[in-house]
Amino acid sequence: MKHIAVINGPNLNLLGAREPDTYGRDTLDGINAMLAERAAAWGAACDFFQSNSEGGLVSAIQRAASCDGIILNAAAYTHYSIALRDAIAAIGAPVVEVHLSNTSAREAFRHTSVIAPVCRGSIAGFGPTSYVLALYALTHP
Amino acid sequence: MKHIAVINGPNLNLLGAREPDTYGRDTLDGINAMLAERAAAWGAACDFFQSNSEGGLVSAIQRAASCDGIILNAAAYTHYSIALRDAIAAIGAPVVEVHLSNTSAREAFRHTSVIAPVCRGSIAGFGPTSYVLALYALTHP
Amino acid sequence: MKHIAVINGPNLNLLGAREPDTYGRDTLDGINAMLAERAAAWGAACDFFQSNSEGGLVSAIQRAASCDGIILNAAAYTHYSIALRDAIAAIGAPVVEVHLSNTSAREAFRHTSVIAPVCRGSIAGFGPTSYVLALYALTHP
Amino acid sequence: MKHIAVINGPNLNLLGAREPDTYGRDTLDGINAMLAERAAAWGAACDFFQSNSEGGLVSAIQRAASCDGIILNAAAYTHYSIALRDAIAAIGAPVVEVHLSNTSAREAFRHTSVIAPVCRGSIAGFGPTSYVLALYALTHP
Amino acid sequence: MKHIAVINGPNLNLLGAREPDTYGRDTLDGINAMLAERAAAWGAACDFFQSNSEGGLVSAIQRAASCDGIILNAAAYTHYSIALRDAIAAIGAPVVEVHLSNTSAREAFRHTSVIAPVCRGSIAGFGPTSYVLALYALTHP
Amino acid sequence: MKHIAVINGPNLNLLGAREPDTYGRDTLDGINAMLAERAAAWGAACDFFQSNSEGGLVSAIQRAASCDGIILNAAAYTHYSIALRDAIAAIGAPVVEVHLSNTSAREAFRHTSVIAPVCRGSIAGFGPTSYVLALYALTHP
Amino acid sequence: MKHIAVINGPNLNLLGAREPDTYGRDTLDGINAMLAERAAAWGAACDFFQSNSEGGLVSAIQRAASCDGIILNAAAYTHYSIALRDAIAAIGAPVVEVHLSNTSAREAFRHTSVIAPVCRGSIAGFGPTSYVLALYALTHP
Amino acid sequence: MKHIAVINGPNLNLLGAREPDTYGRDTLDGINAMLAERAAAWGAACDFFQSNSEGGLVSAIQRAASCDGIILNAAAYTHYSIALRDAIAAIGAPVVEVHLSNTSAREAFRHTSVIAPVCRGSIAGFGPTSYVLALYALTHP
Amino acid sequence: MKHIAVINGPNLNLLGAREPDTYGRDTLDGINAMLAERAAAWGAACDFFQSNSEGGLVSAIQRAASCDGIILNAAAYTHYSIALRDAIAAIGAPVVEVHLSNTSAREAFRHTSVIAPVCRGSIAGFGPTSYVLALYALTHP
Amino acid sequence: MKHIAVINGPNLNLLGAREPDTYGRDTLDGINAMLAERAAAWGAACDFFQSNSEGGLVSAIQRAASCDGIILNAAAYTHYSIALRDAIAAIGAPVVEVHLSNTSAREAFRHTSVIAPVCRGSIAGFGPTSYVLALYALTHP
Amino acid sequence: MKHIAVINGPNLNLLGAREPDTYGRDTLDGINAMLAERAAAWGAACDFFQSNSEGGLVSAIQRAASCDGIILNAAAYTHYSIALRDAIAAIGAPVVEVHLSNTSAREAFRHTSVIAPVCRGSIAGFGPTSYVLALYALTHP
Amino acid sequence: MKHIAVINGPNLNLLGAREPDTYGRDTLDGINAMLAERAAAWGAACDFFQSNSEGGLVSAIQRAASCDGIILNAAAYTHYSIALRDAIAAIGAPVVEVHLSNTSAREAFRHTSVIAPVCRGSIAGFGPTSYVLALYALTHP
Repeated sequence: MKHIAVINGPNLNLLGAREPDTYGRDTLDGINAMLAERAAAWGAACDFFQSNSEGGLVSAIQRAASCDGIILNAAAYTHYSIALRDAIAAIGAPVVEVHLSNTSAREAFRHTSVIAPVCRGSIAGFGPTSYVLALYALTHP
Repeated sequence: MKHIAVINGPNLNLLGAREPDTYGRDTLDGINAMLAERAAAWGAACDFFQSNSEGGLVSAIQRAASCDGIILNAAAYTHYSIALRDAIAAIGAPVVEVHLSNTSAREAFRHTSVIAPVCRGSIAGFGPTSYVLALYALTHP
Repeated sequence: MKHIAVINGPNLNLLGAREPDTYGRDTLDGINAMLAERAAAWGAACDFFQSNSEGGLVSAIQRAASCDGIILNAAAYTHYSIALRDAIAAIGAPVVEVHLSNTSAREAFRHTSVIAPVCRGSIAGFGPTSYVLALYALTHP
Repeated sequence: MKHIAVINGPNLNLLGAREPDTYGRDTLDGINAMLAERAAAWGAACDFFQSNSEGGLVSAIQRAASCDGIILNAAAYTHYSIALRDAIAAIGAPVVEVHLSNTSAREAFRHTSVIAPVCRGSIAGFGPTSYVLALYALTHP
Repeated sequence: MKHIAVINGPNLNLLGAREPDTYGRDTLDGINAMLAERAAAWGAACDFFQSNSEGGLVSAIQRAASCDGIILNAAAYTHYSIALRDAIAAIGAPVVEVHLSNTSAREAFRHTSVIAPVCRGSIAGFGPTSYVLALYALTHP
Repeated sequence: MKHIAVINGPNLNLLGAREPDTYGRDTLDGINAMLAERAAAWGAACDFFQSNSEGGLVSAIQRAASCDGIILNAAAYTHYSIALRDAIAAIGAPVVEVHLSNTSAREAFRHTSVIAPVCRGSIAGFGPTSYVLALYALTHP
Repeated sequence: MKHIAVINGPNLNLLGAREPDTYGRDTLDGINAMLAERAAAWGAACDFFQSNSEGGLVSAIQRAASCDGIILNAAAYTHYSIALRDAIAAIGAPVVEVHLSNTSAREAFRHTSVIAPVCRGSIAGFGPTSYVLALYALTHP
Repeated sequence: MKHIAVINGPNLNLLGAREPDTYGRDTLDGINAMLAERAAAWGAACDFFQSNSEGGLVSAIQRAASCDGIILNAAAYTHYSIALRDAIAAIGAPVVEVHLSNTSAREAFRHTSVIAPVCRGSIAGFGPTSYVLALYALTHP
Repeated sequence: MKHIAVINGPNLNLLGAREPDTYGRDTLDGINAMLAERAAAWGAACDFFQSNSEGGLVSAIQRAASCDGIILNAAAYTHYSIALRDAIAAIGAPVVEVHLSNTSAREAFRHTSVIAPVCRGSIAGFGPTSYVLALYALTHP
Repeated sequence: MKHIAVINGPNLNLLGAREPDTYGRDTLDGINAMLAERAAAWGAACDFFQSNSEGGLVSAIQRAASCDGIILNAAAYTHYSIALRDAIAAIGAPVVEVHLSNTSAREAFRHTSVIAPVCRGSIAGFGPTSYVLALYALTHP
Repeated sequence: MKHIAVINGPNLNLLGAREPDTYGRDTLDGINAMLAERAAAWGAACDFFQSNSEGGLVSAIQRAASCDGIILNAAAYTHYSIALRDAIAAIGAPVVEVHLSNTSAREAFRHTSVIAPVCRGSIAGFGPTSYVLALYALTHP
Repeated sequence: MKHIAVINGPNLNLLGAREPDTYGRDTLDGINAMLAERAAAWGAACDFFQSNSEGGLVSAIQRAASCDGIILNAAAYTHYSIALRDAIAAIGAPVVEVHLSNTSAREAFRHTSVIAPVCRGSIAGFGPTSYVLALYALTHP
């Protein structure tokens, strides 16, 4: 059984309430439950973590170093957290970057990801399905 | 009675001691006491919060979502914290950006505010009076 | 009694008619009347001036050099008039920069103010209340 | 009968004498006479205005707000006058930007028009015929 | 009788169906028919060509070298096709650049035309009338 | 049954032979066969198209306008083909951008996608699995 | 006898009072009197003009077209007035650009002169002597 | 005997007629004949190909993958065709970039070559001799 | 005896395990022990602190304000933490910036240090010896 | 009697022969003789030095530290020699920057002077008279 | 017999020892001997010069003004020596720029040549053969 | 015994006299004597060299290729001398970059070091102690 860490960044605890036209009406708990179910079907188990703190996310990535994969929605930190980038580069586990919205279609500052170069791959724009695709990639050879 | 959250960012706990030529000689406690008094006169009550942590400030803004207004001096985070910007955009309460010094007259990197576009308005350069003006704006129709 | 000059720049004579979604429905005369009233309450008197001409505004600022303060909405000239900047720097009276709209939330070219570095402080985004806040700052110690 | 305002900016009063290789040998009076004739043929009447003053042009655009259309050669102000841009955006009448020369084939600073985004359309490079094309566009459905 | 080549670039074959709020509801065939009629009235005849292929458009411009003029809507290629630019510069016939929409009022990447410097002139923002104005310019002395 | 168009851009016909350290050892035919199989399992059918020609790809996207979805690997054109961008924006079908390699980890010019803003979403870095993820997204509600 | 026009731009009417550390303690009248004297010694006569208005300066340059030379301190307009640049290029008389202070040693925006490329030459940094040097250059073969 | 492919890009079919001051008076056929002769002398044989189409050139480079060398004048595509760059990088044969004119002495956009980094070397500015030098380099050890 | 605070930033707790080719095989504990020993020899004592949290580091710097010196390896925060910069500027103690690797020889974003301007000096590229050099500088007159 | 050092930089030894349309037909010896004469008339004596070497010019400036003034035409080094800038800043004597041609009217890279900020003033565009004006400025109070 | 000057810049005296993976294993003496031989075969004679000094190279170019051609490998000075550029422009002899390595495939700062615009042509990437190609170009009509 | 070359660049011969607020009051001879003493204590011997000439410094670095280490204060050349950079990269000896002042706290052009990427490490801001630290690093394992 594969172990997958699902790590969410700042303001994603507000999902469902926050700007639903951009981020949809699913709550983070709802997405996590859906992912847990899908993981079970695909022979994997997920741990979930959310934090508004950059340092908290760095530590979470360090703790997940021995997982089979990490699904990371770094939210706002995507665009400037070199600390997160360094944490991803420092560990061995593959990290998949996900975004609910199509960040390329939004403000210019959201077009840059400082973490993408050290991730396995990136998925953006499919709403909660972005997480499912990442899970699929990490659980299928 | 209106409820106003007054949220201060990194290093503002040092006010009075820190570079007094730039930031003045008032302490943060002194400014807060003065604001509380002014708020009482204008039919409002203030909650005060200070943190050096970006994530702590994000959470504070989330907690203040149901206030009638937020006075935010994000200090250094003003210039790069997209996480704060997203928190402000995510909640309904109007946020007024304040600065003690005239940031436009200082280093170039202080001329950019990543939070200003999602705030109600911005006030800079009046020392502790910047907070009073923000309070006035939030308490007068 | 303090003397305050209120100086408005290009196209502000159209207020009320011009793009009301951005600039509101108050006319410049209405705002000036409201300011005069507020000034009286705060022990001050205002002079009002509006011009579409950059040179006219430079001369107005020079004439107001002996006032106790100037409230300046330089409108479009905010973004490129180094002549206005030089006029402000040349006189002794404190100048407060005001804007009706939140310029940071509009087109990129409105994010730069060439006059801000030589003003006492800046206030933007509160509609006609922006002027009131400037008046408050100039009339309260 | 349609009323069309023809507004010309700085140094266009020198037409015919000024750099004839770039701007041609027609005088502004000659162009205006030709336009008046063409307008009569197309059921329209033109008012003509020229000024070297940015503020004067802003006021002229404000005065022409009730015309059926404005033909504007802003000359040098094309490239930096946000005040003109705001005036155009503030009025209801459609404005057509014209240039005698092909500005794209000249110095780099002439490649940017700050007024184009708020005009109905732009025409450049046809000499005095640029004005005729603008008149055609404003007088034909 | 003057011979005018009307050359349209990528995706203009979809006119009428494609984003009608931006490009209008006229089909390319409709516009061409209208132009043919207008050309007849002005003592000219038009050839029409459309291609999605940059190389195809380069060749079309080369073939039209002996026309009395070319009306070119290069669409997306306007912004980066140096190959088109070189083709225009290589032939003797005058080329008029046209655009249906006001490209200056759209995304930043549409503000640059790499072909404008080698065209006779440019016309943008008048819908199908942009083509008519170009035809007028090429058929009137 | 859903119809999905799979469109591949320049040099992808060389897959398997071309820079295998970057692009892997699967041929395009092999990937397509694998996708067809997966599509059958998920109640869909795929059409496959490859071209080295920008104009050919524009036309292919136009022809696929009535599909239930398009999987597009625009390869080099990703980074500058505004013609492809306009084609995607012009049709109704959702387009998913895919890349075999993690383009963010390669040369700087590969970090920009001019088509991403008009796509439904983007997937990069998973080798042939990138196509599978796109297929999953287009075939699961 | 040579006729020389001495044209001064915005805020130079404040000389002597304005920022004396930067601009010195001489008044504009004092400088002009000194220049008149020196001109007489060198067989020339000067006309003097000052304006805060960009348009006024454009017109002044046009009026001086038949002089033997123009000494122009465009002050703030130096850095952005393409209208002044066009006026200088339009006339035949040689124009010498002067500045009291060493503009290269001040703020970055003062390092650019949009008028320098069309002037005969430029002189900066010598206080009132800058004007004398310009006069020398225009009156000595 | 070495086999060398000589591939020419857009508008080079016009050589001799096109801007002879820049590109000289030799036709492409004339240059090719001269190259064939020189190749024979140096123990090599040349294939010749010209296209205005970017995709056509990509395919031509792919077809020449087994040659002993490619002489490529990509003309306008030099400056933006990442598709050509990828084709060059994908094949094993050495590619020599040639230009008739000294591109560094022309417009700024001609100073950038996106294909140079993946070519063996570059030669520019010697007219038809540029091709001869490339042939020399590919046929001499 | 001098008191020196040694403060390490994000991911430095992984030293020894993290990318040893870049950061070496020493653990942070090992480096700290070596520093303690060297400090004792040079008449000083060190306090050690490490945190992944930007706010935690800001607070640590504030707490160390009364030390005789601070050795700071801000790691990733070096490149964007204006909050750290403000903390350093706010306290009196001299801060020496250190880096294990030669940051100038790595990715471009590591070439910028926002804290360097407010530090006493900077040392980079000597592995653990970078800390020793900083200690030397702070303990020798 | 004042002592003035006249220092000329690279390629100025070719004056008279080198690009006479830009630099005139006077030789450097001719200019120096003319300056010596003028200096005698104004109560001064000149030393002359020319070098193509940056280091040689740095040393010459150091040697001239005790002069009453330096006239420096740094030629090409004007645009990048921080070593010359540092030499000028290091000595006490006032340095006047001169140029024969109007550098602002030439290539963009000639618009920047790295030495201007540390010179007393700058003079450009008057041919050999530029040196005379500098001499005038240094010899008249 | 043609006279050709071969001028080499800084650090090329180390050829053979210096970074052989980039610059090859031939010494400069070896290359020069090979060139002398080839020159004899092609009816020419070469003079050889190498210097680490920018000024020395400027003087060498001046001395070679009467040669039939100059082969110049300016090495590092290629990228910033405007003094070399001016020397090349000042003399009549044609200069061919050569580089051993493909500078376009190396660090970004090596992609710019400030001397290329004033050279006859440029050759890069062929190792010592780059010199031979330059010699061929200068000795064949 | 280790041999260390201490190489100082332009204007450092003026130390003690030159801008003492920035560079301190020690002379270069004084610093060298202090270094020689320290070197003796640490089992090393130093050679000292200073030059204002870029080429002279390049040659000095080449001559020091067999030393055990080089301490290099390149002064102004730090910011643009690619020739020095190439010399450092060409030799085997480790080079330590030193600066007396904290270059990051000075003018923007001093924030870039073109030599840092090829040095072993960099030390700035400690006055003469910067050299001592470099010596320490080169003499301690």
